[in-house]
Amino acid sequence: MAAISKYLTTKNSSIAGGLLLVLYLLKQRRRSAKSKGKKGASELQLNNDKDSKKDRAAVDKIFFSRLCRIFKIMVPRAICKESGYMILIAAMLVARTYCDVWMIQNGTMIESAIIGRSTKDFKRYLLNFITAMPLIALVNNFLKLGLNELKLRFRVRLTKHLYDEYLKGYTYYKMGNLDNRIANADQLLTQDVERFCNSVVDLYSNLSKPLLDIGLYIFKLTSAIGAQGPASMMAYLLISGLFLTRLRRPIGKMTVTEQRYEGEYRYVNSRLITNSEEIAFYNGNKREKQTIHQTFQRLVDHLHNFIIFRFSMGFVDSIIAKYLATVVGYLVVSRPFLTLSHPRHLNSTHAELLEDYYQSGRMLLRMSQALGRIVLAGREMTRLSGFTARITELMKVLKELNSGKYERTMVSQQDRENEGVEKLTLVPGNGEIINVDNIIKFDHTPLATPNGDVLIRDLTFEVKSGTNVLVCGPNGCGKSSLFRVLGELWPLFGGRLTKPERGKLFYVPQRPYMTLGTLRDQVIYPDTFEDQKKKGISDQVLKEYLDNVQLGHILDREGTWDMVQDWMDVLSGGEKQRMAMARLFYHKPQFAILDECTSAVSVDVEDYIYSHCRKVGITLFTVSHRKSLWKHHEKFPMESICAFDVTTCTWMGGGTTSSNPSLRRQWSLGHEKGMARAQHTLAGEDAQ
Amino acid sequence: MAAISKYLTTKNSSIAGGLLLVLYLLKQRRRSAKSKGKKGASELQLNNDKDSKKDRAAVDKIFFSRLCRIFKIMVPRAICKESGYMILIAAMLVARTYCDVWMIQNGTMIESAIIGRSTKDFKRYLLNFITAMPLIALVNNFLKLGLNELKLRFRVRLTKHLYDEYLKGYTYYKMGNLDNRIANADQLLTQDVERFCNSVVDLYSNLSKPLLDIGLYIFKLTSAIGAQGPASMMAYLLISGLFLTRLRRPIGKMTVTEQRYEGEYRYVNSRLITNSEEIAFYNGNKREKQTIHQTFQRLVDHLHNFIIFRFSMGFVDSIIAKYLATVVGYLVVSRPFLTLSHPRHLNSTHAELLEDYYQSGRMLLRMSQALGRIVLAGREMTRLSGFTARITELMKVLKELNSGKYERTMVSQQDRENEGVEKLTLVPGNGEIINVDNIIKFDHTPLATPNGDVLIRDLTFEVKSGTNVLVCGPNGCGKSSLFRVLGELWPLFGGRLTKPERGKLFYVPQRPYMTLGTLRDQVIYPDTFEDQKKKGISDQVLKEYLDNVQLGHILDREGTWDMVQDWMDVLSGGEKQRMAMARLFYHKPQFAILDECTSAVSVDVEDYIYSHCRKVGITLFTVSHRKSLWKHHEKFPMESICAFDVTTCTWMGGGTTSSNPSLRRQWSLGHEKGMARAQHTLAGEDAQ
Repeated sequence: MAAISKYLTTKNSSIAGGLLLVLYLLKQRRRSAKSKGKKGASELQLNNDKDSKKDRAAVDKIFFSRLCRIFKIMVPRAICKESGYMILIAAMLVARTYCDVWMIQNGTMIESAIIGRSTKDFKRYLLNFITAMPLIALVNNFLKLGLNELKLRFRVRLTKHLYDEYLKGYTYYKMGNLDNRIANADQLLTQDVERFCNSVVDLYSNLSKPLLDIGLYIFKLTSAIGAQGPASMMAYLLISGLFLTRLRRPIGKMTVTEQRYEGEYRYVNSRLITNSEEIAFYNGNKREKQTIHQTFQRLVDHLHNFIIFRFSMGFVDSIIAKYLATVVGYLVVSRPFLTLSHPRHLNSTHAELLEDYYQSGRMLLRMSQALGRIVLAGREMTRLSGFTARITELMKVLKELNSGKYERTMVSQQDRENEGVEKLTLVPGNGEIINVDNIIKFDHTPLATPNGDVLIRDLTFEVKSGTNVLVCGPNGCGKSSLFRVLGELWPLFGGRLTKPERGKLFYVPQRPYMTLGTLRDQVIYPDTFEDQKKKGISDQVLKEYLDNVQLGHILDREGTWDMVQDWMDVLSGGEKQRMAMARLFYHKPQFAILDECTSAVSVDVEDYIYSHCRKVGITLFTVSHRKSLWKHHEKFPMESICAFDVTTCTWMGGGTTSSNPSLRRQWSLGHEKGMARAQHTLAGEDAQ
Repeated sequence: MAAISKYLTTKNSSIAGGLLLVLYLLKQRRRSAKSKGKKGASELQLNNDKDSKKDRAAVDKIFFSRLCRIFKIMVPRAICKESGYMILIAAMLVARTYCDVWMIQNGTMIESAIIGRSTKDFKRYLLNFITAMPLIALVNNFLKLGLNELKLRFRVRLTKHLYDEYLKGYTYYKMGNLDNRIANADQLLTQDVERFCNSVVDLYSNLSKPLLDIGLYIFKLTSAIGAQGPASMMAYLLISGLFLTRLRRPIGKMTVTEQRYEGEYRYVNSRLITNSEEIAFYNGNKREKQTIHQTFQRLVDHLHNFIIFRFSMGFVDSIIAKYLATVVGYLVVSRPFLTLSHPRHLNSTHAELLEDYYQSGRMLLRMSQALGRIVLAGREMTRLSGFTARITELMKVLKELNSGKYERTMVSQQDRENEGVEKLTLVPGNGEIINVDNIIKFDHTPLATPNGDVLIRDLTFEVKSGTNVLVCGPNGCGKSSLFRVLGELWPLFGGRLTKPERGKLFYVPQRPYMTLGTLRDQVIYPDTFEDQKKKGISDQVLKEYLDNVQLGHILDREGTWDMVQDWMDVLSGGEKQRMAMARLFYHKPQFAILDECTSAVSVDVEDYIYSHCRKVGITLFTVSHRKSLWKHHEKFPMESICAFDVTTCTWMGGGTTSSNPSLRRQWSLGHEKGMARAQHTLAGEDAQ
């Protein structure tokens, strides 16, 4: 033993350690270059691209640059609450290390007193301990406070930043409907942001605390037992660390696989819920159970293998990092004691030897604990790099969506050719939008879904303010798509679209949306109370709107405009539709799109709604199959009948109760052919 | 000091401890009785009922009985792998405690050797340590293996049990669509089950390990320094434990509040995603941002207060549980040393004193750590009770759904009266279903949504096998609802429904569902390959079905039936619809409901589909607006036109190209009035 430790001089071990480090780094570099070349021949999997994305979640340069970028969001200025908490944590960490050292020393004094059977000394040092107690407790708890507050502050900063991006314009809509890179934005925004912040702060304390500790203990131990002891411990750490990192490498890969399998397992679950109706109709529960069980079994098998691997890994790990480290510690500590010629203990009494041993011995213990924590922090860093990759991906997608760029699996042109449709080059955002009041004009605009399904190849029609339009056609012919383009939710793939600016066009969906909030909020949505006051619309007027759609009783029942309820649940289908109408009256837009939104409203209320809209000058686009509505509409843009040979898309107008003969003539002259087609299509059996 | 410890005899402290325990239990009982009376005057919140549900997640009798029930699922027999792992864990815990004790002893020997400067002893004991190392590492890692495997085994058992319930019949559909008690079944089934299992196993080891430790240390310490020492430590534990439990009580409440606020925060997020289109149309992003910020701010404020509370709490906590416990430890340990007349150390040398102190001192340290872990386990148990409550709730709902009972917020009858509709008593499952082949007959059946919206008050019609029916009407009139009742997805609220059994009725939805699996699976869904072989349908026939709907090229392209793809993404809309048709050909049901499912299919393929269905005897219910389909349908159940004054529900038939004159006559005689109404409704402008 002594022979080994003879060669463990400070100089030797430093040189050896340095050499090993350089070798290790060189090897790492070569390895990463190799793995880049290897990609491609991977097995077929459902989410291959996700896989490669997650593979990138390693602790490397990219990780640190990503972390830096996010860090700038979380700590925007040098002087702010966040940096304050960071300094508090660092200060408390140092203070705690000093407290620990003091406690070791004081503890040793108490123990010496006990063994020396000195009641006086025992009382004195115990009293010291009791006096210092509150201070030490304070330091520990200030540290916890700092950590928790920093986590929370980081979370607030990051969340606010992400929401500013996420709720800018229609980004939240685009993310879910136009882009398919981020599947579960809500989980990212809530859970993953929290986890990231916790992980980053934990790492901060997990790394800074043992580093501080080691520095301090090395300093203390060097003065106590010389530089050689701590140096050989560090050398052992380095060698064993390199070896263990090498050994642990499959863990990273297996964790990624575990995450993927967990993801797939959750995916089949949510898929079942999303498609529950179709599956129920097909009686597909047995088949789905099979799929879920297969996915679950794959996960379980992997987890089982992982456990076995970690078992064998952990065996080597604990022997090297824990027990052999202790042996090295003993060897290092014992040297000045066992070498009888050592200058340090030439003239020491037994009590002095004892005190010396227990001071340095305990410090050695703490040092090895600190070293262990650094090894653990390496694992934590791998986890953090995973979260960082997710947050960075979200930020990237948000940024790109905000600048109008989006990615989506497009239906390949090849497939469409098989259906006998000519090629059509679709470039999102290729069209031109012109904001002009009182007119809506589609000028050679193709209508296509974001993933490239063309619904109408060339759409041209014009509607002027004051002319109600009834739109009908089978499901899937592009009615909703038309409105999505009109509402600027979907990109324009070409042509020119003239329309009033966003706020002057109002869409009333079939299943009206009720916001979380007061009764007032439902009527004035998306305005706030301040907006209402600014517009000068009194509560009395609001009440009138409610009365007009026969919803006055809700206010009477609730008693106040400020009643908070889950209105989505509280109101019935018809009440929700009427509420949406009251909302329309409140906003008085130039144009309103009513998408089957009076299906649960009685005819008299419907009549009132249409005549009121006419009175206040709201031009209506109606999508409905109800005959009772036809009398309210006068114009029939028949030019745009169909475009696509597969779906028979029909635009048609109804009733001619208009008292304006010139309008009527214009229609019958200009749109005769179209009209005939409409009759043919919808009243076919008559002609036969 | 000595004066205090004089009264700390074993007997005294046991009596005092017992008394305190009794007092505490009595107080607990009174408190819980009080809190029951107090409920009711709580503030209005969005999820009041959820709140009270979570409040029940306390560590009490209910929790233990729930845990027991779940435990029986996880460990079904006395002798199984699970109980094996539990025994392994217990054995390894005991072994580890012995290893720890051995290591303390051996460590003391090594240290004595160092201080005694005996190289020979040092080498001997160090060699001992090195020899024992693998065994100790093995014990530690077997423990970890046992814990991880037990977690996994529990998860597998519980997951399988829950899936058996969840995928029985239509339970998965009912849970999402008919019942609104469980909002996120997928999260419960994946994440919460995992968390529950981890929590329950962690608790098992967290409680059993310190309990074993304390038992062992008490035994060892009692023989070393007498029973009085450990007894007074236990007394201190009891007193401080009671005090701290009292002090910590608000933490439980604050954790529940935190969970609720986190839940609300996630809810507003997923709500935004669910309603993203409506919100985008309304330009509601600013308003929604406000809501999200408010919810987030409430969470942050609460978390902030919680941190501050935990800071002040932690200060008291650490002084009492950590530092004062150490002081008590010192007092207890020091007694035999400092009392010079103590019989134990009357004739001890300094070295003996030393060895004795370090053995008992270290054990004391371990014992106080073990006590700390028990205190921590109390917190863990509160967490577990939360998970237990969630799992129990899921199991309860699954059980009730499987027995046909469901709960849902019904639209109150009062509201409906305002819409001018008479009362109608709706009792789910009140109707009678008769399984007869070749006929579908609705006999005075009301059509209502599961939450009580009546669509048609009294529906009566009959369709015989061989007579295709075309169904049309505006959105929301009850077309889909009719099919849901027909498919037994929705309960029958009354009347009598005669229909073939489930498997003989096939529903083809507009957006066809593609299962995860091979190309073959898409065609034969929900059958498995085994079913296909049993039915004696060869791959050649499958290929014919694909060719018939012009999908043969997919098989040619992929080359094999066993190609796994995400077919939902890979196939275009039209291809999916045609695939659904191939599936229909494969299953050859008596009746098939085609719900706008040929909207993206070209007319020639459509013609083929209808004539093929006629050939093989599949009777079709078609929902479509396409004129081209009318020629395939002959019967028009006009009796059932409308029923509800609010929605103008229309049933109509089309085209009369039938070559059978008698059928034609029958129609024109029997359904003249209805036909006229249909013309009036859909070809209205002609009549005017």
